[in-house]
Amino acid sequence: MTRQHLISEIKRKKSFLCIGLDTDIAKIPKFLLRFSDPVFEFNKQIIDSTHDLCIAYKPNTAFYESNGAEGWLSLEKTIHYIKNKYPEIFVIADAKRGDIGNTSKMYAKAFFEKLNADALTVAPYMGSDSILPFFNYPKKWLILLALTSNIGANDFQLSSNNLKNKLFEDVIIKSKKWGNRDNLMFVIGATKAEILQQIRQIVPDYFLLIPGIGAQGGSLQKVVQYGITKDCGLIVNSSRSIIYAGDMSNKFSKSSRLKALEIQQEMKELLFLNKF
Amino acid sequence: MTRQHLISEIKRKKSFLCIGLDTDIAKIPKFLLRFSDPVFEFNKQIIDSTHDLCIAYKPNTAFYESNGAEGWLSLEKTIHYIKNKYPEIFVIADAKRGDIGNTSKMYAKAFFEKLNADALTVAPYMGSDSILPFFNYPKKWLILLALTSNIGANDFQLSSNNLKNKLFEDVIIKSKKWGNRDNLMFVIGATKAEILQQIRQIVPDYFLLIPGIGAQGGSLQKVVQYGITKDCGLIVNSSRSIIYAGDMSNKFSKSSRLKALEIQQEMKELLFLNKF
Repeated sequence: MTRQHLISEIKRKKSFLCIGLDTDIAKIPKFLLRFSDPVFEFNKQIIDSTHDLCIAYKPNTAFYESNGAEGWLSLEKTIHYIKNKYPEIFVIADAKRGDIGNTSKMYAKAFFEKLNADALTVAPYMGSDSILPFFNYPKKWLILLALTSNIGANDFQLSSNNLKNKLFEDVIIKSKKWGNRDNLMFVIGATKAEILQQIRQIVPDYFLLIPGIGAQGGSLQKVVQYGITKDCGLIVNSSRSIIYAGDMSNKFSKSSRLKALEIQQEMKELLFLNKF
Repeated sequence: MTRQHLISEIKRKKSFLCIGLDTDIAKIPKFLLRFSDPVFEFNKQIIDSTHDLCIAYKPNTAFYESNGAEGWLSLEKTIHYIKNKYPEIFVIADAKRGDIGNTSKMYAKAFFEKLNADALTVAPYMGSDSILPFFNYPKKWLILLALTSNIGANDFQLSSNNLKNKLFEDVIIKSKKWGNRDNLMFVIGATKAEILQQIRQIVPDYFLLIPGIGAQGGSLQKVVQYGITKDCGLIVNSSRSIIYAGDMSNKFSKSSRLKALEIQQEMKELLFLNKF
């Protein structure tokens, strides 16, 4: 999927919402357990009731792998379902992979060829050769962890031992030499919204994937205030607060739609205020 | 698996060899393609012909994921096969995972409960809460990336912007407060053997997982010279140079055995010289 396509979808839907499909089989409505693949059934209903409000879905691989090979099949079916029914939607495999060059090539094959995701999240710790193989796929995206939304971000990413830059700044500065604004994005947690100003000095025109609003407590308004660009440049994710918005009844996906709609309406207003 | 068990296996087998099961379906002998699960069949033959020479196997998830849900099934079957037939052997899932606490819990479930691996490799970038959930499993191990064997290790791990410590040193110093020598190991590439001396100042009694001998060019002798402890403290991995040692005939696993034996004999000699 091209950058231009993403921007036009944001304009068309008046939304830069990504819905995280962190589907935990222990948390979904019990009546779904009679389906042969309850996780896939849950995802399908969430997708069908929210697809017009979001521009991206982001399944996190951990939740699927916790069900073993069967879980991986649910993941495959979920991505296939989105790609077939709603081909305009951007699919991010949130897998946080990264390995030596030879092995990262296999991850690129796994996620871009076999699973047909549009984007993959990658951890930068292993450096250039762990990242470069993903850029060999036209219209596919690598989304690099820079400054994450969790408490552990303080341990290394914001490490202050450093004379000049924090680690997350080094990651952004170096990796933008390896990729470009058409194949590389960065993860920046919404819980660190103020830092977005500083990050926009380094990457004024890159897309950022922002998790951490909703269950993690980040503010959408602040994210937009500090992070928006003339191309929007933001994909804001919410997972738990949308997909588990409902009760355990067969109307669960209606509650998810209402929650997604509430966020989309706020986004629409913020886009309008920013003349987008 | 306990630390004591690991040490006694090293003594019994006179080996600290780990064999990396980086099984690429494009590289295995063609005659295996007639089996219903060629990757599993390849692994089985490698395992049966090398199990007495090594103390650990290390499947890298990238190679399995590149075959999708089917590949994940090959991985499950491989670990199940080792655990049933050779329960004394340590199984490392080389997955380099790491996510926010809530999600790392799901990875722990995936690898320690569902797959029943003894150990999981984890990337430290996301800090404490991405690491802590793995310590809730007694007799299971987290193997944290510290200084990897690839060229990209220079980008961040050895970053010299830092006044006091390199990033990989920070990772070791901080994380040993979160785990201990009974549930935490570190990955240190054999291609950086000289640095082992310095690392042993920080973690004199932790086990280290050392990839990078063989195809990547590290020296076993140097690894032992700089890294061995009174408990051995080393698990040295070789992947491609063992599993692809043979030609494409049905005797491929004999060549793998010969290569593994050559390394084990060198290890035996080095252990003897170090009075182990």
